[in-house]
Amino acid sequence: MKGEGDKNVAVCDMKLERLLSMKGGKGQDSYANNSQAQAMHARSMLHLLEETLNKVHLLKYSSSNPPPFTVVDLGCSSGANTVHVIDFIVKHISKRFDAAGIEPPEFSAFFSDLPSNDFNTLFQLLPPLVSNSCMEECLAADGNRSYFAAGVPGSFYRRLFPVRTIDVFHSAFSLHWLSQVPECVTEKRSAAYNRGRVFIHGAGEKTAMAYKRQFQEDLGVFIRARARELKRGGSMFLVCLGRTSVDPTDQGGAGLLFGTHFQDAWDDLVREGLVTAEKRDSFNIPVYAPSLQDFKEVVEAEGSLVVDKLIVFKGGSPLVVSQPDDASEVGRAFSISCRSVAGVLVEAHIGQDLSDELFFRVERRAAGHAKEVLEHLQFFHIVASLSLA
Amino acid sequence: MKGEGDKNVAVCDMKLERLLSMKGGKGQDSYANNSQAQAMHARSMLHLLEETLNKVHLLKYSSSNPPPFTVVDLGCSSGANTVHVIDFIVKHISKRFDAAGIEPPEFSAFFSDLPSNDFNTLFQLLPPLVSNSCMEECLAADGNRSYFAAGVPGSFYRRLFPVRTIDVFHSAFSLHWLSQVPECVTEKRSAAYNRGRVFIHGAGEKTAMAYKRQFQEDLGVFIRARARELKRGGSMFLVCLGRTSVDPTDQGGAGLLFGTHFQDAWDDLVREGLVTAEKRDSFNIPVYAPSLQDFKEVVEAEGSLVVDKLIVFKGGSPLVVSQPDDASEVGRAFSISCRSVAGVLVEAHIGQDLSDELFFRVERRAAGHAKEVLEHLQFFHIVASLSLA
Repeated sequence: MKGEGDKNVAVCDMKLERLLSMKGGKGQDSYANNSQAQAMHARSMLHLLEETLNKVHLLKYSSSNPPPFTVVDLGCSSGANTVHVIDFIVKHISKRFDAAGIEPPEFSAFFSDLPSNDFNTLFQLLPPLVSNSCMEECLAADGNRSYFAAGVPGSFYRRLFPVRTIDVFHSAFSLHWLSQVPECVTEKRSAAYNRGRVFIHGAGEKTAMAYKRQFQEDLGVFIRARARELKRGGSMFLVCLGRTSVDPTDQGGAGLLFGTHFQDAWDDLVREGLVTAEKRDSFNIPVYAPSLQDFKEVVEAEGSLVVDKLIVFKGGSPLVVSQPDDASEVGRAFSISCRSVAGVLVEAHIGQDLSDELFFRVERRAAGHAKEVLEHLQFFHIVASLSLA
Repeated sequence: MKGEGDKNVAVCDMKLERLLSMKGGKGQDSYANNSQAQAMHARSMLHLLEETLNKVHLLKYSSSNPPPFTVVDLGCSSGANTVHVIDFIVKHISKRFDAAGIEPPEFSAFFSDLPSNDFNTLFQLLPPLVSNSCMEECLAADGNRSYFAAGVPGSFYRRLFPVRTIDVFHSAFSLHWLSQVPECVTEKRSAAYNRGRVFIHGAGEKTAMAYKRQFQEDLGVFIRARARELKRGGSMFLVCLGRTSVDPTDQGGAGLLFGTHFQDAWDDLVREGLVTAEKRDSFNIPVYAPSLQDFKEVVEAEGSLVVDKLIVFKGGSPLVVSQPDDASEVGRAFSISCRSVAGVLVEAHIGQDLSDELFFRVERRAAGHAKEVLEHLQFFHIVASLSLA
């Protein structure tokens, strides 16, 4: 079985942006069925989103065919959350047009994620437009979609949209995904080699600096691209995992999710001879939870956008557990939560069978620390509202 | 086994637009692997597409951020053909901007099809943008995508895009798909009930009229929606199956594909007791190959678009056969061709197993008439170039 693992393609051999996705489809470990916590966290931040939306300029066009009001969700994944948030944004802006006495333009929404995202599942979730060819009437009908919808496959670390066409960018729980594992982190001879570990959490200083540099570079590219695409008067609302610690090797909730039982389960596989130490070390989770300071530095250095608001927000636990006293349920919830976001990467690295072995051990280990998991697994989020400088 | 077939959902019970698609994925009977004939036919019509593209007005904007030049493929399916045609259009228009000495805007392309289309496979086929965040440099790099891309899930019998945002609409081999099987055609007590048959070809006059009315209604809705979406100066290039006969019950190539061996194979299943006669009769292929006159009447009655060009074009055979003397290969090619476009509907109606039985009989019957199939299976296409009235 050792050989079987080694035959699998290593993450570093394949471009992350052709591979990374939340688990598609509608199965037990799919993202569509494991994003209730994200939904809850998003709901708790709606007042912050509203604040951003209230800053967006409502343009009044003299033309009878004004350009559409265009909303984008970046890192939309394949669950219902993205549909809900787009719906919320469109409804909120519609109300603002009404309140301002301006005839609203048509609305257009783009759902964007990597090409490996399960867009088919997402498109099945979209409510239909009402059955007439007239958008004006669609906007009136409830329970139906009141905007034109499109899916945009591509990395948000590149340009995705034509220049000055977007009114509102929204991105939740995505920007902590790096464009790649920093190369030196998996290079055996590098001082930043993350020996023995699969995540930045608890890693050495050189490894941590490599992760941090990657985050800064990525966020800079992201901002530069969006600054070209944003209309004057438009706004951007970003939420990503953040940390409260100054030290990047203390990744907070992400650290607990990927740096403890998940790490230990990898070590189990190595100890049991199911994967080699090298195989484990060549796997790294391409996530970085920035501090407020990390985030701010990049925005200020890049210069094309200004910060309207930037805070750390306590999001709560990513686990959805109905019986908190049931340790095995907690273990299962932990493992499923872990697998729904990192499972695709793990499977690409060691295959389906070893992946099953790994997450079985994650589950068992988390069950053994159920109380601790429930108490300490808390996510903090960076929430940023940005607009053109 | 009879019961098994009957348990399956009938097409008429499910909205066609949530179901219809060319066969997704990359398997033997997938559309991605069975659209070489469409590719060939499309290539033979490129000079006609060029004619349409040369009529498109190149707008010169004073602004430094002009709106994007936007191209749409309607009924794109999940093969490479749509990527090639979008690439062709973008390159041709780019050259025209260069020749006119106008700084080209950014290009944006929308790939649109029903939500049941395999967009995941399509998105994997898209060439990547080059690895920088600057579109201007992308446009220079060859072998890469020089346009922003998005997928739009929805029926083209409804609005799909914001008003006045599209420069070029392209649609090939799609508009002969009706929005639904006309209801009366599967209603036992209707005079238009298509008893004993699964397609309009060879049907009675009342059935034929119901198909024709459905086509006219659908095309009218299509034109009304596109007329709202097209920019002034923009153009639309449409190709769909057509017929040379005045009589709608003689459907030409489509008639041979769905009205002969495919029809006989259904009759085989009924005779063998594998499906009931009612089950067969409740299945109908929602395709209508219009005559030039049918098409023209609708455009003129609708009135919002004018015909710049409207011709019948001989497209050739849909079969790709390497050994024309090998009757079994011809039979197989016929059956696969039939299944790649109608298989999804058949499977929804009678399930996978009976569908296998059906197409096995299609193959055997077509092999028995290999010479005839090769000689007579010829597609004619309606080619239309339209712009705003």
